[in-house]
Amino acid sequence: MSDELTREIEALARRARAAAPAMAALGSKQKNAWLTRAVECLDEQKETILEANRRDLAEAREKGVDRVLVNRLDLTDKWPDMLQGVRDVAALPDPIGTMGEQWVRPNGLRVGRMRIPLGVIAMIYESRPNVTVDAAVLCLKAGNAVILRGGSEAFRSNHALADALRTAARDTGLPEDALLLLPTRDRAAVDVMLKQDRYIDLLIPRGGSALVRKVMAESQIPIVAHDAGVSHVYLDASADPDMSRDIVLDSKMRQMAVCNGLETLLCHRDAARTALPVALKALHEEGVEIRGCPVTCEVFAEAVPASEADWAEEYLAPLIAVRVVDDLDAALDHIRTYGSNHTEIIVTRDYASAQDFTRRLDSCVVGVNCSTAFSDGYRLGLGAEIGVSTSRVHWYGPMGLEGLTTQKFVLFGNGQLRE
Amino acid sequence: MSDELTREIEALARRARAAAPAMAALGSKQKNAWLTRAVECLDEQKETILEANRRDLAEAREKGVDRVLVNRLDLTDKWPDMLQGVRDVAALPDPIGTMGEQWVRPNGLRVGRMRIPLGVIAMIYESRPNVTVDAAVLCLKAGNAVILRGGSEAFRSNHALADALRTAARDTGLPEDALLLLPTRDRAAVDVMLKQDRYIDLLIPRGGSALVRKVMAESQIPIVAHDAGVSHVYLDASADPDMSRDIVLDSKMRQMAVCNGLETLLCHRDAARTALPVALKALHEEGVEIRGCPVTCEVFAEAVPASEADWAEEYLAPLIAVRVVDDLDAALDHIRTYGSNHTEIIVTRDYASAQDFTRRLDSCVVGVNCSTAFSDGYRLGLGAEIGVSTSRVHWYGPMGLEGLTTQKFVLFGNGQLRE
Repeated sequence: MSDELTREIEALARRARAAAPAMAALGSKQKNAWLTRAVECLDEQKETILEANRRDLAEAREKGVDRVLVNRLDLTDKWPDMLQGVRDVAALPDPIGTMGEQWVRPNGLRVGRMRIPLGVIAMIYESRPNVTVDAAVLCLKAGNAVILRGGSEAFRSNHALADALRTAARDTGLPEDALLLLPTRDRAAVDVMLKQDRYIDLLIPRGGSALVRKVMAESQIPIVAHDAGVSHVYLDASADPDMSRDIVLDSKMRQMAVCNGLETLLCHRDAARTALPVALKALHEEGVEIRGCPVTCEVFAEAVPASEADWAEEYLAPLIAVRVVDDLDAALDHIRTYGSNHTEIIVTRDYASAQDFTRRLDSCVVGVNCSTAFSDGYRLGLGAEIGVSTSRVHWYGPMGLEGLTTQKFVLFGNGQLRE
Repeated sequence: MSDELTREIEALARRARAAAPAMAALGSKQKNAWLTRAVECLDEQKETILEANRRDLAEAREKGVDRVLVNRLDLTDKWPDMLQGVRDVAALPDPIGTMGEQWVRPNGLRVGRMRIPLGVIAMIYESRPNVTVDAAVLCLKAGNAVILRGGSEAFRSNHALADALRTAARDTGLPEDALLLLPTRDRAAVDVMLKQDRYIDLLIPRGGSALVRKVMAESQIPIVAHDAGVSHVYLDASADPDMSRDIVLDSKMRQMAVCNGLETLLCHRDAARTALPVALKALHEEGVEIRGCPVTCEVFAEAVPASEADWAEEYLAPLIAVRVVDDLDAALDHIRTYGSNHTEIIVTRDYASAQDFTRRLDSCVVGVNCSTAFSDGYRLGLGAEIGVSTSRVHWYGPMGLEGLTTQKFVLFGNGQLRE
């Protein structure tokens, strides 16, 4: 890579670092003023942004990019939700400076932990330009500076969006360098960014295992990874057939190309001839291809035999793997062996099964009698999310404002010495 | 490195991983039974352990190892405290399975976060054999498996201690592989361990910047680093001279070779001729060499001029750097420039100074009117500590049981689908 590019990206990281203390010192009022102004600036610059987006879309179509990706790239229909997201983040309580419980030591020393920003966050994500806005507003509301690198197909859209957010920053007195984008599509720029552990406190790679692996191999910056999701629904022996069908359909069909979509359906053998065929029939009618174990193929004629590889597959497509198991233990074993610690749901009427399933699995989201779609920061009430962390360290599961902060210890004494 | 050693360490990491689910499933009762039995086994095997320790000590003295290190290595006088530490951890509440606040979504879905173990923790630490016991009991009480690698001077002591802890594990039904030590002093074994990111969830390097740097450069395992401490006390304009003297003395003298010891004393210019000379006189009488800025040398004749390098030095010795600053802002600037985000204390009678100092500094422990010695998990009421994390990600500051865990989301529904 060129020396010039290296110097440019290093300078960028230094600028973000230099902006971090001013960001950390901001009060909620000023951060919210920025968010309010950001909505206005985005609307004022809407035509410029959508024109940039149209150029990205045209180029993507010209290159023959996959339809799913083109849909993700298109900002027009996402515009109202994107702006509402900014308003929602403005309405969220500011975590910075809050202290939870304080306790008093026998010598009278008062101790507590105060929430503070992480500092500089760098995020690498898919070609979804609306994520540029989501990520920027969450990171800055949490008092951080941020460096963003979205997928190269969204390059023009991302820069147009960031320009609007930076206009708002200028108008409301936020440091402009708190929100920076890599200035080039050149992948070498990412490689340089991965080396800036002096200036960057946390790296968030989002969008596929290959990216996560690469980032982990090449960077010394702490990482919270947002990896693939091989999510499961398990129909217990006592599962209600109607609820099973509804949850399976909702988990698989509502949005297919997302990490919390259902990929493998497990079923207790006692429900294999009751709840299972009802759910499979509904999926089949929606055009989902069913790849089943031998028992599945026996109870549902339209199923085709699954191979070993199907159990670990993140399809993100109208395909589902289905396996009948002997009992709850076998279901847990299957999930531990083939899953990705993402989202696992049991459908049951049995108290002990519900307790066992939620207690014994250590995936980042485990649940009873609900759709896998609730594995989402917004739907869980975190206000918004930067993604779903599959890293156990720092934050595990849907990650909102709190995951973008840390806590320091604060001691209030009146002359205490060690005994 | 030899293929045989590589295979041996890989097998060790796999064994720890295999033990992790059984550890995670243990109830408090069984973990506490192990801790109680561990105290007995350590006492039963005391002579064997102290004999191993004597051989380590003899070898260290023969090699001409530094006196401070020999003192750290000696188990005899640390024996009662070490055993009391195990009893203390048995008495601590078990964090595993606890859920904090639960909230209910508008659709009736109940959501909470449940505390779970991290999985497999590997720790690299100094030649302090008592840390082998501290680390083992904390990691296992938090439901993890652990791989330990203490300093090579303590090799025999560590293995003798671990044998006793494993005897207790056998006696109380814990998986023996939950507590493993690297089987050789060969540093190549550490290098292999650093590559086991498939099996190890968290790496804790403790004992100096060089180790932390090496581990960060060579491993893809998430790291919580316990780095050097360049800790500060700042005497504000309004600092009480007696309290200043007592806090400075306690912070510097109580234990010198620890990361929360005072290294640089800062003083507001308005206290340079009042509180400062009182504190410096007391330090001088204790035999501490004072390296001062020009004003310090002017107000205290026994001070010698400090060089730029002194401001960033972790002495761990009877040396102190002293600087007079214009105001609180200058003190914060100094700490941000030369500090290591460890422990910073202000001595003041002024409300605004206390608020500013604790709010604006982002070191892992900030405090008012108390000794730096309280930057310690035990003294802060965490029950025990595995070290003081200077990493902002995952845990920041003194780290006890909670820092050795993570949280998963748990969803309790009754058929909720996405809207």
